[in-house]
Formats: sequence, C-alpha cells, structure tokens
Amino acid sequence: MPETHLRRRAAVRSRLRERELDALLVVDLLNVRYLTGFTGSNAALLVDAENDERTVFCTDGRYLTQSARQVPDLERLIERPCAPALAAVTSEKHNRRTGFESHRVTVDDLDVLAEQAAKVELVRAPGLVEELRVVKDEDEIEALRMACAAADRALADLIAHGGLRPGRTEREIARELESRMLDHGATAPSFETIVATGANSAVPHHRPTDAELATGDLVKLDFGALVGGYHSDMTRTFVLGAPADWQRELYDLVAAAQAAGRAALLPGAAVADVDDAARSVIEHAGRGDEFLHGLGHGVGLEIHEAPSLAKTGEGRLSAGMAVTVEPGVYLSGRGGVRIEDTLVVRDGEPELLTLTTKQLVVV
Amino acid sequence: MPETHLRRRAAVRSRLRERELDALLVVDLLNVRYLTGFTGSNAALLVDAENDERTVFCTDGRYLTQSARQVPDLERLIERPCAPALAAVTSEKHNRRTGFESHRVTVDDLDVLAEQAAKVELVRAPGLVEELRVVKDEDEIEALRMACAAADRALADLIAHGGLRPGRTEREIARELESRMLDHGATAPSFETIVATGANSAVPHHRPTDAELATGDLVKLDFGALVGGYHSDMTRTFVLGAPADWQRELYDLVAAAQAAGRAALLPGAAVADVDDAARSVIEHAGRGDEFLHGLGHGVGLEIHEAPSLAKTGEGRLSAGMAVTVEPGVYLSGRGGVRIEDTLVVRDGEPELLTLTTKQLVVV
Repeated sequence: MPETHLRRRAAVRSRLRERELDALLVVDLLNVRYLTGFTGSNAALLVDAENDERTVFCTDGRYLTQSARQVPDLERLIERPCAPALAAVTSEKHNRRTGFESHRVTVDDLDVLAEQAAKVELVRAPGLVEELRVVKDEDEIEALRMACAAADRALADLIAHGGLRPGRTEREIARELESRMLDHGATAPSFETIVATGANSAVPHHRPTDAELATGDLVKLDFGALVGGYHSDMTRTFVLGAPADWQRELYDLVAAAQAAGRAALLPGAAVADVDDAARSVIEHAGRGDEFLHGLGHGVGLEIHEAPSLAKTGEGRLSAGMAVTVEPGVYLSGRGGVRIEDTLVVRDGEPELLTLTTKQLVVV
Repeated sequence: MPETHLRRRAAVRSRLRERELDALLVVDLLNVRYLTGFTGSNAALLVDAENDERTVFCTDGRYLTQSARQVPDLERLIERPCAPALAAVTSEKHNRRTGFESHRVTVDDLDVLAEQAAKVELVRAPGLVEELRVVKDEDEIEALRMACAAADRALADLIAHGGLRPGRTEREIARELESRMLDHGATAPSFETIVATGANSAVPHHRPTDAELATGDLVKLDFGALVGGYHSDMTRTFVLGAPADWQRELYDLVAAAQAAGRAALLPGAAVADVDDAARSVIEHAGRGDEFLHGLGHGVGLEIHEAPSLAKTGEGRLSAGMAVTVEPGVYLSGRGGVRIEDTLVVRDGEPELLTLTTKQLVVV
C-alpha cells in the first residue's frame, strides 16, 4: 500500500509547513513504520517539508533486502546508527529548522544529533506523527478488524472444544487461547493474555497462575491478537456452572455500563464524558469505588495509545478513532467482571470489531 | 532474595559517593527490577547515597499488593507518574546533586523532572546501574542456567518427537519449540524464534515462514527461553539427511571458530580479541566476508546487553560476565551455519550454560 504511506507523509509535510519546519526527524520505530511500511527493528526517517523526493529513509545492513522491498519509493541510506546519520543529512541539505521527537529522543542522544546537525536548529516536535495516528485510515481499520476476528475465532474454538472447564489451570487456558490466535493468523498475542478465575477475577491485571477453574467461578479472559502490526483487545467474563445471584447482578451491571459507554462513542464527544457515561451507571449502583480504572484507550500500532477514555482524559472523539470500552467491577476476594470491546468511532453508531457475544455465557 | 537487592543497592551507593552524588533517580524498569526485585510495568527508584532507609521506591495503585510483597524493605510511594514524584522527593530531602539516567530520560521528560526538583542539580549519570549489571551475581547465573536448561530440554524434546522432518514448515517448528520451552518452565521465548531451512539459513536473522524443510537442507534454529526475567540464547544448525561435503566443511569451520571463541573467554581478555580469536579462523579459510556480524553479546535481563564481543567492541572481560559466542558463515542462496552458546566467564575455563551437543547432528 505505497499510496497509503505517501498520503500519510503528505499529511506530515503539511504539518511541517504549518510550523515552519524544513524537516522532521522521525526516530520512533512505529512512527517510521506508519509512514513507510518498514517493519524491521532499526530505522529512522527524515521527512522533508517540501516533497517526498527529498525525504530520506535509513536502516542498517541487516535490512538491505527487506527495506528495498518495503520502502521502494524513498531515497535510502544504509547506516548504523540511523538517527545521527539522518541528522547529518539534514545539515547537508542546508535545512534551517528540523523538528525532532523530543518525547522519544533521550537527553544523551540529543547531544549526538546536535553534533551531527551542527548548523541546523533542532526544534522539539513531540507527538506530531502520533497526532495523525490517532485517526485510523481504512487500511488500518481493516488490519484491526482482522486482529479482532482472530481473537473472536480463537475464543469460539476454545469454548467449542470445552476449553473452559473445572480443573484446567489459568495458565493452560492462556496458552490455548494464544495458540488458537496464531492458528487464526495472528503473528503474536497483542499483550500478555489474562486468565483469572474465582477470586483472581477481582484483580484487574491478574497474571495467569496454576490456579484451577472450579464450578461457580467467574472466569475473566482479557486477550488480543496482533495482525499486520495492529492490536486487538477484548475481555469477556464467563460463569462456570449456574451463576449465583450476585454474579448475574454484577454481570448485568457491567454489561449495562459497557452498553452506555459504547452508545456514547460519537464524533465530537468529550472523552471524559464517554468515561462518565459508563461510570455513572456503576456509581448509581453504589459500585463506583470498585471500578478502579479508566473506561478505555485508543488501540492501533500500540496496544495502548491515544485517546485515553478516562475521567482525566482530554480532547474529543473523531470519526476513525479506534478505542476500547472496558468497564469492570471488582469485588475483592470474591470475583470481578470486565467486558471489553474494540470499536471504531463512526459518523452515527460506532463499528464494533470484537463480535463475540456479550450475553452472559454459562459454560 | 532481599539480601541480593540490598547488596546491589549498596554497590550503587558506593558509586554515588565516588561521584559526589546525593542520590540516583532510576527510571529504567530493568534497572529498578535489578535493584529491588519488582516485576511490574511501572516504577522508579530514588537510591540515596547515604543509606537504604532514605531510599524510596515508587509504583502506581495497580501494584499495591505486588509491590508490598516484592519490595518489603524500602519506603514506598504510590503515585503515577513515578519519576516526577521521586524528583519531588529528592527536592524535599534537600539533596543538592541527584544523578539521572540521561540515556533513558527523554528531552521532554527532563523538563518535568527539573520542574519537580527545582532546587536540585540534576546530573547526567548514564549507564551507572548497567555497569554493575554487566557482572552477574550467582542468583543471576542460576536464573540464566535455568533459562538455558529450558531451551536445551525443548530442543531435545523436539528432536526426540521427530519434530525436524521433511515437509514441516519453519513456522510450525518455531511454534513447537516455543511451546516446549513453556512446558519446561519458561515464561516466554526470550526473542522471536528463528527457524531457517535451506537457502533461508543463509539469512542471519530470518523470520520463520511457511517454507517446508526438505531432505538435504541445513536447518538453523536460534532461540531462547525467559526464566525469572533472564534470557537464554542458543543456535544450533542441523542437516536433514546425509550432509553434502560443502555442508560438513562449512559446519566444521564454524564449529572450530566457535571453539576458538569459547577458548578465548578469559578474565582480562579484550573483547575485540575474543571476536578476533573466532573470526581469524574463518578468515584463514577465506570466508571472512561471509561472517557478517559480531561474535557475541552480553545476556541477562536483556537479550542483548554489554559487553559486545565485536571487532569494534571496547573493554575487557571479567569473571561473572555472561555472553554468547555465535560465529556464523552464510553462503547466499545456498545455506548457512551458526553455532551459538551462552556462557559465563570464570577464572579459568568459562562455564557453558547451553549444553546441547555441538557435534553435527544429522536428523
């Protein structure tokens, strides 16, 4: 999809011109990937404000073949380390002002860049590419859709094969889920899979242990698949055997809050209001203190990225943002319920990417 | 092992006093883990030059229980974000000079720290903890031993179960190896497993594909296990069926170079000389241009850490350093051989941690 990367670099160029920068030195590897399609482990990019012909991509000798294939449309420099090499290039091009990613470049690294780009003014430009990344294009949404589908299918397989049953350990289930995601095209899990049974389900970020599932347990699964560099994120909570009244009540409460959160996902909505839409449902039930975290987060090339759907979150939603909605209520020592989807904000209703049912499933 | 962490913090204190620093603000998460045992995903540490009683550990609310268990011996602050909170603490303690990890702290983050520690002089102290980490203590070596054992056992199982046979794909074998490492106690693979068959074995860092193993192929496996936060790293190369003369010749050459590299692992040896000991064997055979990378690297809490055993490497070995020795010769379009061990430099012979045979195994 070279046109996609072309379009993204054009968007960077227009921002550079707005800020009167001659170039941007991109060192964040995900930002480089976003702007070029390069997937190796070492690279940097000097985006020229004028045109793509003056833009230079740099990687090292290990990626000679791969970078020729993935980045055929840019001038290429093979050098190690990359960022100082491109700092020297910006100087050779007689640039006056070059932006750099001050949120990524370390204090020590800036010295090296400044030395290489002696005659250039290095200007802080934190988050310039990330601001573009927050609104996904259709190529990205398609990758997220595939990542979510891999997770949906893995969970369906797990359940169809009786994977959730008394006596199995959290760790076994986590491994099976991860293996099934790979079967469905994931390159990796998108984060460390959470399987939490019984009282462990009340720990928001429990790590799988050798604890065995038992009849009557709430079982919380929080997991995702990585496909084409994009992360899915989904949580479902099950009951093993007939649910007790308190479990059903807890489940219905979280499901209602989650539905309210999803309904609030509209272009123009303040992110803090989206959090509030779900949180107020839980607060009205007197459980506000047991909902310990934000409502959700952006998801894309990173598992956690902007925007943050939280009380203290700033800014508003736009169409094309991909976010999670994941309220949870955790009763310490007893059990917890979290229900989480990945969705895309659209004009009108959001697009749901994680399609597994949110009805209470009793296994 | 709280005494271990106590001892490591004492070593930091003595370095701080040498540099006339009142404290060190540690933000690198692996350095925090090294000094405290904390394994969560957000933390920082303010090591006081005077004593442990004035040292403060910081994490956020998610890790309330975990940090109480893992770091029972230090004053604890629950705050988010951690580094600015500890910058404020160093100010409250009336410290004059506080070191910070300028190789990790970004340009933007330093502003925030400086604001919080307004009256304190923030002094660059890059790599101070990493310098200690380069020589492993016995607790660390035991963790490395276990990590190497998990990889050895996984490979033995794979071969015993006929895992290396014509028709299987690189990807299948990578998944099986990774799964078997988990069976043997690994928490994860220590990096993305390399399985490269036939001509692919000539690509030093090939990623597993759907290419099928075929009789006559060289099959290169480069993989490792993560145990207790420590990484193992091992490469073995096999032949499927009877080896051709050129394959045996190539194998014997790399094995001789690897043995020479291991024999050169002595306290006091210059790292560049260790590289040369192996490289010169390959150069004398006229294959110097086909050995494309350094001889090895340190291994520990990171898969790649100091020292670098390379032509351009600086410094000397000390007893207790854990390193890989991994020469390779790659014949483009035909196949390559790499043989890699993880070892510990000892007074006298190095301790070999990866115990799988280095004889040419024909499967």
